[in-house]
Amino acid sequence: MSKKVNAYGAKDSQADLEPMSIKRRDVLKDDVEIDITYCGVCHSDIHTVKNDWGNSVYPMIPGHEIIGRVTAVGEKVSDFKEGQLVGVGCMVDSCQSCSACEDDMEQFCEKGATMTYGSKDEHMDDHTHGGYTTSIVVDKKFVLHIPENIDEKAAAPLLCAGITTYSPLKNWNVKKGDKVGVIGLGGLGHMGVKLADAMGAHVVMITTSPDKAEDAERLGADEVLISKDKDAMKEHQGSFDFILNTIPVGHDMNPYINLLKRDATMVLVGAVEPLEPVHGGGLIMGRKRIAGSLIGGIKETQEMLDFCGEHNIVSDIELIDISDINKAYDRVMDSDVKYRFVIDMASLKN
Amino acid sequence: MSKKVNAYGAKDSQADLEPMSIKRRDVLKDDVEIDITYCGVCHSDIHTVKNDWGNSVYPMIPGHEIIGRVTAVGEKVSDFKEGQLVGVGCMVDSCQSCSACEDDMEQFCEKGATMTYGSKDEHMDDHTHGGYTTSIVVDKKFVLHIPENIDEKAAAPLLCAGITTYSPLKNWNVKKGDKVGVIGLGGLGHMGVKLADAMGAHVVMITTSPDKAEDAERLGADEVLISKDKDAMKEHQGSFDFILNTIPVGHDMNPYINLLKRDATMVLVGAVEPLEPVHGGGLIMGRKRIAGSLIGGIKETQEMLDFCGEHNIVSDIELIDISDINKAYDRVMDSDVKYRFVIDMASLKN
Repeated sequence: MSKKVNAYGAKDSQADLEPMSIKRRDVLKDDVEIDITYCGVCHSDIHTVKNDWGNSVYPMIPGHEIIGRVTAVGEKVSDFKEGQLVGVGCMVDSCQSCSACEDDMEQFCEKGATMTYGSKDEHMDDHTHGGYTTSIVVDKKFVLHIPENIDEKAAAPLLCAGITTYSPLKNWNVKKGDKVGVIGLGGLGHMGVKLADAMGAHVVMITTSPDKAEDAERLGADEVLISKDKDAMKEHQGSFDFILNTIPVGHDMNPYINLLKRDATMVLVGAVEPLEPVHGGGLIMGRKRIAGSLIGGIKETQEMLDFCGEHNIVSDIELIDISDINKAYDRVMDSDVKYRFVIDMASLKN
Repeated sequence: MSKKVNAYGAKDSQADLEPMSIKRRDVLKDDVEIDITYCGVCHSDIHTVKNDWGNSVYPMIPGHEIIGRVTAVGEKVSDFKEGQLVGVGCMVDSCQSCSACEDDMEQFCEKGATMTYGSKDEHMDDHTHGGYTTSIVVDKKFVLHIPENIDEKAAAPLLCAGITTYSPLKNWNVKKGDKVGVIGLGGLGHMGVKLADAMGAHVVMITTSPDKAEDAERLGADEVLISKDKDAMKEHQGSFDFILNTIPVGHDMNPYINLLKRDATMVLVGAVEPLEPVHGGGLIMGRKRIAGSLIGGIKETQEMLDFCGEHNIVSDIELIDISDINKAYDRVMDSDVKYRFVIDMASLKN
């Protein structure tokens, strides 16, 4: 039920990524076999490789922003054909029967979604392995169609950074003319700006760094608000219809809560750790809201990809060879990438 | 433009409440003059008397849960007639032209609502004075009709505690069969239980004190969840459609966030101070939400009063004479009241 393929992975939480080979399951009746062409590098890959969240399993092959071409399909697969451009994001399976799955929100599967790497693979005696490899087999329900008109290598980050920012914008009903703040200009933030702009919002990039202003505007921001500038923050107080907060670490949310209009929401997509104390009065005055959002369901991910195809939206990327992956990790940790590394998987095949 | 009336108030933040007399404005064309029969004692009265929030003005006559009978009306008043039972809550005026006022949410008036006490009175050279007195004059738009079928003295707390808990239950669309948690069994919490129960919700009182269980059930709770009981908290994890959090001080919200279903909201109505750090992951997993809510608009307050009339809902009160007010304050601070003190204002007239 499995064959060996080349990959790059970590033996344990202390190890750099290095070449290894992994078992890959055979193509079952509902499966799609994909020849991986590109895989994005997500900041969460690094946290997981280093076991920062304490639930990592080794050997680990990271990668959940996977682009490739179909090479084979199982007998019950009709939606996918050999040669088609496809993608795989953060999940590869779920129970398909709980209320979350029934509501097309497999990311909240009550039995726990099978993540693309590091989860128990229900179909073989191994845990799942991600996209830093040459080939993957995934249940058809978790394979996405990638629009052929967009740059496929730059489409890879849509599978995580794209859906992570698209889902809250849609779920909180961002619409033409809304004043939308995007806090933080990184992998998530730069997608948030592009997507909110394409939805017709008046986009304000909120950043600590004045030197990011030009780039934010190139990406689609109508304004840049420097969060350290108290006068500017005061001017924008109470004026935002929605704020997408992509800051990846704990921080003080109170100055951003002040920016919200009455009844408006700020959604966290980056900070999975404790945040600084929120002032209750800041929420009570103006009936303001804070919420979290996690990637998106498969149906919504396809909707996002179609939206990106229609608006010709991809990520800004820097293409690397697999042998550069450890250097790339260092640069991600230094926020030194505009705005996402993508691995050219041909470099692993050669 | 003013006459003197008897009142009980504080000279400064160090002073106990004592008899004093205050100027009361004459009845203008849009005004309603009210002979005050009862006034509730809100915990926020104590904070304001002691200047805990730093914005108090003296001499201060507290009280914003006012019940009385109309004694006179201005020439442009047709909705109110002499002898009618009426109420006044936390606000007595607002700009009536900003978007919040246009949306019937005067509590969020962009120019700042005129609070029942301690705000600039636009109609005379003084600040406003609250309900610990015998007579008040209020613009007709801020006077509420009290259903004649309910116990008028026990209706007083509806004007603050009632609307503070009714508004979020309605705004977040609590409906028949919803599992609703009410955290904290005090002045706000006991109203939350009664109102959510009357809306048909399955009400769970969430409290640290097992000895409150019996009373919670008497008030309408279907279940009592002891928040210190980790096993019980785990059993209820991810099961609440809505949580009304009435805890009046900073606290750890994370155990309560865990109780919410996917996409469910916990609303803060009590804690106007910094809360302990929220764990971002707790919001992100399950797309959960926290929000604040502040009293309610005048239209909604009337709706709440009509609802209470229909369901015969009032507050559980302990009636006191005005001369007992300082002792009552001490007991409120010791959480030693079931569940609201109401001053019999006849005791000030004698």
